[in-house]
Amino acid sequence: MELLSRIRARAAGASASGLRLGIGDDCALVRARPGEELAVTTDLSIAGRHFRLDWHPAETVGHRTLARGLSDLAAMGARPVAAFLSLGLPRELARARGRGRSWLDRFLDGFLALAAKYGTPLAGGDLAESPVVAADIVLVGAVQRGKALLRSQARVGDSIYVTGSLGGAAAGLALLGELAGRAGGAGRVRIPARLGPALEPHLNPVPRIAQGLALVRRGLARSGMDLSDGLSTDLARLCRESVVAAEIEAGALPVFPGATLKQALDGGEDYELLFTVPAIRKMPAAIAGVAVTRIGQVVRRRAGRPLVSLMTDGKRQPLEARGWEHFS
Amino acid sequence: MELLSRIRARAAGASASGLRLGIGDDCALVRARPGEELAVTTDLSIAGRHFRLDWHPAETVGHRTLARGLSDLAAMGARPVAAFLSLGLPRELARARGRGRSWLDRFLDGFLALAAKYGTPLAGGDLAESPVVAADIVLVGAVQRGKALLRSQARVGDSIYVTGSLGGAAAGLALLGELAGRAGGAGRVRIPARLGPALEPHLNPVPRIAQGLALVRRGLARSGMDLSDGLSTDLARLCRESVVAAEIEAGALPVFPGATLKQALDGGEDYELLFTVPAIRKMPAAIAGVAVTRIGQVVRRRAGRPLVSLMTDGKRQPLEARGWEHFS
Repeated sequence: MELLSRIRARAAGASASGLRLGIGDDCALVRARPGEELAVTTDLSIAGRHFRLDWHPAETVGHRTLARGLSDLAAMGARPVAAFLSLGLPRELARARGRGRSWLDRFLDGFLALAAKYGTPLAGGDLAESPVVAADIVLVGAVQRGKALLRSQARVGDSIYVTGSLGGAAAGLALLGELAGRAGGAGRVRIPARLGPALEPHLNPVPRIAQGLALVRRGLARSGMDLSDGLSTDLARLCRESVVAAEIEAGALPVFPGATLKQALDGGEDYELLFTVPAIRKMPAAIAGVAVTRIGQVVRRRAGRPLVSLMTDGKRQPLEARGWEHFS
Repeated sequence: MELLSRIRARAAGASASGLRLGIGDDCALVRARPGEELAVTTDLSIAGRHFRLDWHPAETVGHRTLARGLSDLAAMGARPVAAFLSLGLPRELARARGRGRSWLDRFLDGFLALAAKYGTPLAGGDLAESPVVAADIVLVGAVQRGKALLRSQARVGDSIYVTGSLGGAAAGLALLGELAGRAGGAGRVRIPARLGPALEPHLNPVPRIAQGLALVRRGLARSGMDLSDGLSTDLARLCRESVVAAEIEAGALPVFPGATLKQALDGGEDYELLFTVPAIRKMPAAIAGVAVTRIGQVVRRRAGRPLVSLMTDGKRQPLEARGWEHFS
């Protein structure tokens, strides 16, 4: 219990926007403001599948765990209310070694730093011994009733937009793999300082909370989701939920500097927002300080036409879903 | 994705009491009724620690996973609104063998049968490949604002009550261990039909939702929690949160037939409710069809006195917390 008390003490500092009762009882209690409903999402990360203990510093595993959940709130245009963390981990990772801090302490450093940045109190969770690190993040957010950005609301004729740039996370992961290869697979990967910026989109992705909130508040977007599994996979999901098809302009894609077109199309974990906008609506060049780019349009589904097409100089080719699958 | 679609199709049948949007988007959307707040809880179960694949039929792992979460709602006096399930599992457990159904299908049988019984739709979750089965259950419930049963509200002089009987789950687990021992550790434990009733409290615990709701609605209890980790451990937690001490009468404990006093005191997973009641209040013998028993009283904390005392024929001995610890 000493461990849970320590986490409780560290979590107590965060501000509470709707949280009435945090860690320490059988449940946490949350309240929406009048006119709001609550958005709830869970994301499970498993060592060896979503991250590697020898590649990823503990702080970035904590950051990425929370960022995945926050990004789901951003996708709906919800403001964060509370986070819950269920963590299974080997006993030795909870133990401090010598003067150093434990893996768990460093995981919490990354987790709680991002939580503080987005005013998201850690309101509960669970802790268990496990042979493999398993981190399940639960986010509760609040959004005006009926205003949440849904995947199912795209309409034929809408323009398709993304925030920021694409492929940065996949390019960073590829670079991390190269560094690991050079190290010969022995021990922890060391990251030279000069490569920090190139790795940043992979190691410390930024959830687009402010952008999602602005899209809802200003009534700009008709439908939306976040790019967690890669544009080719996620856009196909949006099309299926909305019963439409999509055409993407290869030349219009905001590719992260140094990333390939393939990484921009299929790489996951960029955590940018993908949203559709009625064609008639005038869009600003940036939302809450982040550039937005028109990358294509929503079209009618037609027999013999791909669900998602990639258009290059007027030529159509099917854009197969080659992003991350949860169970493949 | 075929797997997720299958789960979505199976989950769609459940009724929705406050759930506005279920599986299929970045978040689920839930609404409380006017005057309600939402209760949120998560519980992580790991194979080898909370259950064993060779001891526990898949259906009971599903049942127990959800029962843990529902019991946390019962502890607060909340009604279930929605469940979320994050499941990490080895690939072969998601695959059907021959004409049989997969471990995952059978897990969902147990999970969804209990969910239907308590009107709790499966509203979302996540699925990932994992070398070990890890199941994180999230429950969202609703309770009248300010009326939730808290661990922190016990007062000196309160009577201490429990629902049902204690030790049945621990006795069932011990019996299961014996059956496994006889089988020599080879393969799956077979459970003879005549032993079904004795194993039931362990394999298929009943969350006390109706009893928790009645305690709040009728204003009977002042504080409460559920017995998930054993009376000796859980009552100490209630005392710490309320800054009080407790005396338990050994002779008053409703011990499950065939269980030992030690199993009733320290065995976890009974999922009965533990609650305190102002001494002046008259209690019925049963609540929503389940017996309630006065087992002791809340007393002032005193230096040199144990936090929880076990009284046997007027003699006091300290009741050390010997139940389940989440990380020990």
